[in-house]
Amino acid sequence: MAQRVEAALEIAVSRAETGAPPLLAAAVRHAVFSGGARVRPQLCLAIAQACGDDQPGLADAAAAAIEMLHCASLAHDDLPCFDDAATRRGRPSVHALYGAPLAVLAGDALIVMAFETVARAGVAAPSRLPLLLGTVARGVGMPAGIAAGQAWESEPSPPVEIYHQAKTGALFVAATMSGALAAGADPQPWRALGEALGAAYQVADDLADAVLTEADLGKPTGRDEALHRPTLVGQLGLRGAYDRLQALVGEAVDAIPPCEGARELRELVRMQATRLAPKQLARSAA
Amino acid sequence: MAQRVEAALEIAVSRAETGAPPLLAAAVRHAVFSGGARVRPQLCLAIAQACGDDQPGLADAAAAAIEMLHCASLAHDDLPCFDDAATRRGRPSVHALYGAPLAVLAGDALIVMAFETVARAGVAAPSRLPLLLGTVARGVGMPAGIAAGQAWESEPSPPVEIYHQAKTGALFVAATMSGALAAGADPQPWRALGEALGAAYQVADDLADAVLTEADLGKPTGRDEALHRPTLVGQLGLRGAYDRLQALVGEAVDAIPPCEGARELRELVRMQATRLAPKQLARSAA
Repeated sequence: MAQRVEAALEIAVSRAETGAPPLLAAAVRHAVFSGGARVRPQLCLAIAQACGDDQPGLADAAAAAIEMLHCASLAHDDLPCFDDAATRRGRPSVHALYGAPLAVLAGDALIVMAFETVARAGVAAPSRLPLLLGTVARGVGMPAGIAAGQAWESEPSPPVEIYHQAKTGALFVAATMSGALAAGADPQPWRALGEALGAAYQVADDLADAVLTEADLGKPTGRDEALHRPTLVGQLGLRGAYDRLQALVGEAVDAIPPCEGARELRELVRMQATRLAPKQLARSAA
Repeated sequence: MAQRVEAALEIAVSRAETGAPPLLAAAVRHAVFSGGARVRPQLCLAIAQACGDDQPGLADAAAAAIEMLHCASLAHDDLPCFDDAATRRGRPSVHALYGAPLAVLAGDALIVMAFETVARAGVAAPSRLPLLLGTVARGVGMPAGIAAGQAWESEPSPPVEIYHQAKTGALFVAATMSGALAAGADPQPWRALGEALGAAYQVADDLADAVLTEADLGKPTGRDEALHRPTLVGQLGLRGAYDRLQALVGEAVDAIPPCEGARELRELVRMQATRLAPKQLARSAA
């Protein structure tokens, strides 16, 4: 599955490179191929498989689109006018390497490429495109996708749940539901899994920001506190947030509907989940 | 036609507002409804009509998408890390009013909303979506859409023709071809019209930047020279660029293929074209 994700991303990115401005092409490649865990696209493909995967090209495209949109959001989130992060996944962020203008444009290009990739693959099953593209779009746009999530940080008192759901949860929901839609299945049974995983990732992110060092995490930490963002660690304390994370992982596993590969899918979710909690906390809580 | 464009934009924007972060929603609305001439979406609709317009909802969506993508590119182009323009169309630019973070996010949201709008309207004729969305995407993405056009400005010696075609021409080509595609027609006969109009607009933009004042134009001028951008005025001189503009408008009119509303379309192109040349130049050249 990991190879399928990398292959789909390679196809989408290399198709856009021929004739492109060389620095933009390099910035896009850096944004996409810099050691991401590919959690969302693997989830998308796993659910497409659980639903029969009768159009694997469309599922590949949906998975690649979800990851390209994630990478676009990171490139923009690291900009000087947002987090001003010089590192990401232990490497220079896009703007640190290529400057803010190309980081803005690489993010823009990746958003466009995401929809272009799904549209192109949709030739094989065009009747699936309206819902599939709409679902992907809802994960990243307005009113309640990633762009909205980041924008809540500009509001005087953002509602914490809605902010987290938009900034992190929405793309997980898009990943699970688009996996089902790419395979021609009803997406609704897969919503709860996306919601629980998205919430788990947000708690894990808050925990990591609070307890890890930049060397541990590969990006600046302590940003939430420095930027006065509302976090669950602030609300529940470290131990409370850790317990919430464990509960959410359980919820995610329980949310997997009856399907062909349910057992493998539960394994995948549990495996991803063990990587979620900062090890330091897992030890002290054990 | 102008009302059709405004109505389609109003539907697309207001649909995304409910539940959105209020400042993001306001920034998106400001980016879209600030006195734009709507040249591209009117062109798109005019061509859909010339091709029979059998799916007016899809044509409306394509036109709205083209304009939202144009507005997104302006919001990003005005950012401090690009043109750092405080005004646009005689009003404050998005970042001047809402700050750089919300200007980035409003642009991102508009790109997503553009594709979402077309995908939603595609329910009525899904088999048209792959080519239609691909055509819209090519106008704004990588390798040769607006994002690529802006990115050429970060290269040490951009090829002028390719840079202009990407920055301005590509979205005009997308406008004409997507109008045909939304109506289920062959888009190829409409490519040359888009290319000629895009080239004409680029020359007009260079001329305006060179000869008008900020009060005339409603945005800062003299930016090309200040930013050492390659321009046609620099290459051909004022008079040469003005002659080129007139020739391109003639080419555009001649490029209209035989179709139902060919005469009205030629009128529309000529009318838009007379608004293109800075009046000061038209007088001195007359």
